[in-house]
Amino acid sequence: MSNPVLVEVLRGGHVESRHRGAVAVFDADGKAMLEIGDTQRPVFPRSAVKSIQALPFVETGAADAYGFGDRELALACASHNGEVGHVELARAMLAKAGLDVEALECGAHWPSYQKATIELARSGGTANALHNNCSGKHTGFLCACCHGGIEHRGYVRADHAYQEMLRGALEDVTGAAHNADNRGTDGCSIPTYAVPLRNLARGFARMATGVGLGQERAKAATRLFAACMAEPFYVGGTDRFDTRLMNVAKGRVFTKVGAEGVFCAAVPELGLGIALKCDDGASRAAEVTVAAVIARLLKGDALADEIAEFTRPRLTNWNGIEVGGLRPAGELA
Amino acid sequence: MSNPVLVEVLRGGHVESRHRGAVAVFDADGKAMLEIGDTQRPVFPRSAVKSIQALPFVETGAADAYGFGDRELALACASHNGEVGHVELARAMLAKAGLDVEALECGAHWPSYQKATIELARSGGTANALHNNCSGKHTGFLCACCHGGIEHRGYVRADHAYQEMLRGALEDVTGAAHNADNRGTDGCSIPTYAVPLRNLARGFARMATGVGLGQERAKAATRLFAACMAEPFYVGGTDRFDTRLMNVAKGRVFTKVGAEGVFCAAVPELGLGIALKCDDGASRAAEVTVAAVIARLLKGDALADEIAEFTRPRLTNWNGIEVGGLRPAGELA
Repeated sequence: MSNPVLVEVLRGGHVESRHRGAVAVFDADGKAMLEIGDTQRPVFPRSAVKSIQALPFVETGAADAYGFGDRELALACASHNGEVGHVELARAMLAKAGLDVEALECGAHWPSYQKATIELARSGGTANALHNNCSGKHTGFLCACCHGGIEHRGYVRADHAYQEMLRGALEDVTGAAHNADNRGTDGCSIPTYAVPLRNLARGFARMATGVGLGQERAKAATRLFAACMAEPFYVGGTDRFDTRLMNVAKGRVFTKVGAEGVFCAAVPELGLGIALKCDDGASRAAEVTVAAVIARLLKGDALADEIAEFTRPRLTNWNGIEVGGLRPAGELA
Repeated sequence: MSNPVLVEVLRGGHVESRHRGAVAVFDADGKAMLEIGDTQRPVFPRSAVKSIQALPFVETGAADAYGFGDRELALACASHNGEVGHVELARAMLAKAGLDVEALECGAHWPSYQKATIELARSGGTANALHNNCSGKHTGFLCACCHGGIEHRGYVRADHAYQEMLRGALEDVTGAAHNADNRGTDGCSIPTYAVPLRNLARGFARMATGVGLGQERAKAATRLFAACMAEPFYVGGTDRFDTRLMNVAKGRVFTKVGAEGVFCAAVPELGLGIALKCDDGASRAAEVTVAAVIARLLKGDALADEIAEFTRPRLTNWNGIEVGGLRPAGELA
């Protein structure tokens, strides 16, 4: 079965490229509100489930023990730009647990945000693991290990005690099996498990509402979502989609990108969770898709019009001339 | 009609993403040797036709008048990394025509190659139009204008005399109409025209063989292809697909990437031209596809095995761990 075209890329009025994909919108009880394409095919959610992976960091009391607030919680759920604000906050969090950059096992890369790379190079610096877009998530893992007296070395391995806790949280929230059969390795070396979009969508409805989760888990999920929506810069950074959209939505929408064209999102006031993947892995199309879905769910609300702006990004060239743009297609048009 | 899946992206043994597209392989007489998907749908070839756009630079005598050799001709056909070698050669070419960076109308961007960006920033430099991946092509345009006594200002505009010459060359080589109806604006501000893959494939067979071209045009095409195959670094740069593949092929294969998942290529000894586009615009999939097609065309030759290596790129994460890879799918598997 071939998923439908969700997004078209235009140049000079002609469709230049096309992105296919699938979308699931579910409530916390498992009722489908919208399904486009194959929502049963397992997909690796990658970084889109970082908020679920941050649950034990809050539930174990680690976040409170170290005195962390919204910014730190948001950074634990982030795919960040590696800007100074992200790097210094991750460094400060590690220091609270008596650790430093050497404890991070995510690997180093230059900041995802080119301006941050240029500033770092100009200042004579070089990339380390703090600049890795996943360093906040890994910092949360490390803080939880230290607080819980769990040996942190090797924390990225699938058989490590902390990864087992994360696997349990992912299974609990999504209701899908997570094991060696559906396991891959993520860019930051931790396991990622392929599960159906419908399970992810229901899971994000549960995260947003607490329905179907234990009391402590529901409280932790609410705190993490609230933190991300209150401090969107720490979830992404300058010019990042999640940051821009959550800034506009002012606490009413949660979104989180994952590599290879994935988004998980929620509209808490509607009790709905959203999960989608562009077949080809393109972030640009996943962004347009998630915005189109949210704008549709909020139809009639002034916020829907603001979010609809994200469904029509303009493409400009190196002289700033508008040469085309993206638009939702098919059922999302 | 939906084009077939040409490339799969794997993670942990599972297919994570899929790329669809179309492929045309034609000889210079217009005989189809291979067609996959819709090869009649017009596509913007973008930078994949830079060698055709470099024809007047040679035909007018400009390249010879300024004493340019293989490197300069290759750079005129390039989408380069903005490495020091590319930037300094473009600067030297402009100087021969009495011009400098100010004459370039392509716009500025930081080098496509991250290491070059970091080096430039570390040295206290900043990006200018010479770093633009298209600066070599634009330099060729400018040199031809100066040599021919054509006012160069505004040379990027569709109605400029030199763009009219380029449009004529594109129509002649591809046999497809190029006009306002199928025109878009490229990233570097010049026009790009959407034409069917089959026309592009036949056009590249003509470029490789001279069949169907006038004598001067055939000579210029042969010189440009020979220059690119002799100096692959100047067509792309460190780690670039075209550079790596042409280095391996040692003068037997010409390839050129275009933005949004396009390749135009040729195997001169077989008299065949190749054109392809991944529907979603992904370069990673277009690279695997063009390598798979060339390996198939050369089947039984030792070079086919070397080129087959390009069809299975490994994906490693930030710790250097292999986490997956790409592979040809469907008819190309």
